[in-house]
Amino acid sequence: MKPLGPIPAGFEAVKGELAIGGEAVSALVEQAGETPLFVYSRDLITQRMAELRHAMPDRIKINYAIKANSFRPVLEHISTLVDGLDIASGGELEMVEAIGFNLSKVSFAGPGKRDSELEAAIAVGVTLNLESANEARRALAIGERLGKTPRLAIRVNPDFDLKGSGMKMGGGPKPFGVDASQVPALAREVVDAGCEWRGLHIFTGSQALSAEAVIDMQAKVLELAARIIDDAGVGLPKLNMGGGFGIPYFAGDVPLDIAAVGAELDERFSALPASLQKTDFFLELGRYLVGEAGVYLTRIVDRKESYGETYLVTDGGLHHQLAASGNFGTVVRRNYPVAIASRFDAEPQEEVNVVGCLCTPLDRLADKAHLPRADVGDIVAVFCAGAYGASASPSAFLGHGPAAEILV
Amino acid sequence: MKPLGPIPAGFEAVKGELAIGGEAVSALVEQAGETPLFVYSRDLITQRMAELRHAMPDRIKINYAIKANSFRPVLEHISTLVDGLDIASGGELEMVEAIGFNLSKVSFAGPGKRDSELEAAIAVGVTLNLESANEARRALAIGERLGKTPRLAIRVNPDFDLKGSGMKMGGGPKPFGVDASQVPALAREVVDAGCEWRGLHIFTGSQALSAEAVIDMQAKVLELAARIIDDAGVGLPKLNMGGGFGIPYFAGDVPLDIAAVGAELDERFSALPASLQKTDFFLELGRYLVGEAGVYLTRIVDRKESYGETYLVTDGGLHHQLAASGNFGTVVRRNYPVAIASRFDAEPQEEVNVVGCLCTPLDRLADKAHLPRADVGDIVAVFCAGAYGASASPSAFLGHGPAAEILV
Repeated sequence: MKPLGPIPAGFEAVKGELAIGGEAVSALVEQAGETPLFVYSRDLITQRMAELRHAMPDRIKINYAIKANSFRPVLEHISTLVDGLDIASGGELEMVEAIGFNLSKVSFAGPGKRDSELEAAIAVGVTLNLESANEARRALAIGERLGKTPRLAIRVNPDFDLKGSGMKMGGGPKPFGVDASQVPALAREVVDAGCEWRGLHIFTGSQALSAEAVIDMQAKVLELAARIIDDAGVGLPKLNMGGGFGIPYFAGDVPLDIAAVGAELDERFSALPASLQKTDFFLELGRYLVGEAGVYLTRIVDRKESYGETYLVTDGGLHHQLAASGNFGTVVRRNYPVAIASRFDAEPQEEVNVVGCLCTPLDRLADKAHLPRADVGDIVAVFCAGAYGASASPSAFLGHGPAAEILV
Repeated sequence: MKPLGPIPAGFEAVKGELAIGGEAVSALVEQAGETPLFVYSRDLITQRMAELRHAMPDRIKINYAIKANSFRPVLEHISTLVDGLDIASGGELEMVEAIGFNLSKVSFAGPGKRDSELEAAIAVGVTLNLESANEARRALAIGERLGKTPRLAIRVNPDFDLKGSGMKMGGGPKPFGVDASQVPALAREVVDAGCEWRGLHIFTGSQALSAEAVIDMQAKVLELAARIIDDAGVGLPKLNMGGGFGIPYFAGDVPLDIAAVGAELDERFSALPASLQKTDFFLELGRYLVGEAGVYLTRIVDRKESYGETYLVTDGGLHHQLAASGNFGTVVRRNYPVAIASRFDAEPQEEVNVVGCLCTPLDRLADKAHLPRADVGDIVAVFCAGAYGASASPSAFLGHGPAAEILV
């Protein structure tokens, strides 16, 4: 038997079935017309934002990194709740333009921006988080050519990382940003060139569950920003402090203590060095805002035994849920939170393997899981499917096509 | 320094650039209009098939598993060279219908077939490789309802695996096929029910480079098929012996010795047990037929240093080349064969990291690779991109969209 991850708060049983936003999964599937299906809860996103605002100092602004989930209804909803949006490509720029979002509140990070992407961003006043001196010069040249003052910030490759984070994005050689020691000179260069200077972006890692690690990281980010700005002798209008707030996926994971993070940040804000006193501070969060608000629903199409093991074969799989299958940046596969959604209040009764419909042994949704008895026609729920699910999976693989998505 | 995988045969330098099908990469990129770009070589596919036909006994038929690459021009070309096509979903059925392929030469395997997929396949005479007793009964019922005799084979979960294969698909509890011991009874059941009996499908693993392992596997497949058929007391019109033929991706990999495999198979065919003497034998190959015929081309958009390491940042990445990034069924990341395509005859001169344009540390195309000096504008080639590249990668991730594809 292998443990399942913890089911996030906010999900309940209605007449024995899992309900999302008050609606039973069978009704949701009927509404969408098919399985597999991603269901995102408007209420859970709203609630998560409210909890976060409550825990964080008033002074901090919250940006949403749309790469986590750019399904248009989700994007439209969350854009009414946050202070800005962060994008990572020209394609994502088109998405934020399509929903009519204020583009002066959008910033664009990404280590491989093409000239066409820089041009599109500068033309509409999106802030560029510069990833290199070369990119800075390209952006300035494009701004000149367009007769448009580019809004520029510098992404810093910090000299420390986020301890215990799922993905480290600082603390050594990295393709992201400009090494901290090189930033002051580059900041002076772009300010002298007459850009609209927006400040710094310091992103150190993602998916951390330890408040202590996040607190430590934020302290170092503030210190590093002050050091850079003092060295550069330029102001700091904005500081994107990165994100890193994780969500529990696996057995034993506990939610990040955001109250502790917020309290500590409040302390720091009350004792800011002179160079940061007028700065607007931002958190950039993606997964933390939407990850737990999404559920992937897939129907069991076969139940079979092989050498004494039971397999529930579903109509979904890694083509929609690559990370849950354990094949995306994971060394040791562990089970996400998974349930029999159509028997959500039944007691676990047997050990089963839940697999997808693809012809590959990689296509696993739950290994040796303890679940209620389920049969063909039952619906399986994979939780924590709101971020890096639909958009971060190879949906064309084996020709099954993408899953449906709804926001309820 | 980390080694690169071996560049497949058949690629040459023309005026200093990598040429594919006789055309230089700069011309190919111009033709496609953009990078990133997958280029597949018609000649290399044709040549691979010719070599395979030459090495294998005349008696064996060769099927193409379209999951490896279903780009329509590739599918159209290869469909003229092979004896049949293997599909894995209703979506792939539509693809083989779209090219006008003879559907009686198509078989459909996949552990999670929906009723709608079974129905579509039965209606047009596609052979179903049954994955369970339950699926057999559903197929028979659908055939009855449609007034159409289903063409049925049984996929066997063999009691052995393919030694040294990249992915094992036999030899223990598996979601694929019917445990060998259960097959005779199910074969009798479907034959008695009046299906058009097509035989057995025995698939044990994929991506093996050892001829010895493939030979051993094929011998066991023939023995197992004979044992099952003798037990079942039904004939064996067809035997899909699976595939498993690998291609070299990594340093130290050597090509599979197909001459040795063919010679041994020829021996076995000359001494077949009585129950197999009238059988049509098939190999089902995907990656082996197209993998080395494809190259992924991506342009360098930045060159940067970070703490003494050099990064070449490209406009491509794991959203097109998940497997090459080391994030698809891989525990330890190793480098695929990678080259500076625009300086293909230059000597290696420096150690660099080639990364994609995505904002994630997972997005790596080559780590600590020894390559010729390259700058912004140069084109990087990732080889072995003809199979499980474009179709098996999360192309929507971060909004960059899919890569272009051309067959030359």
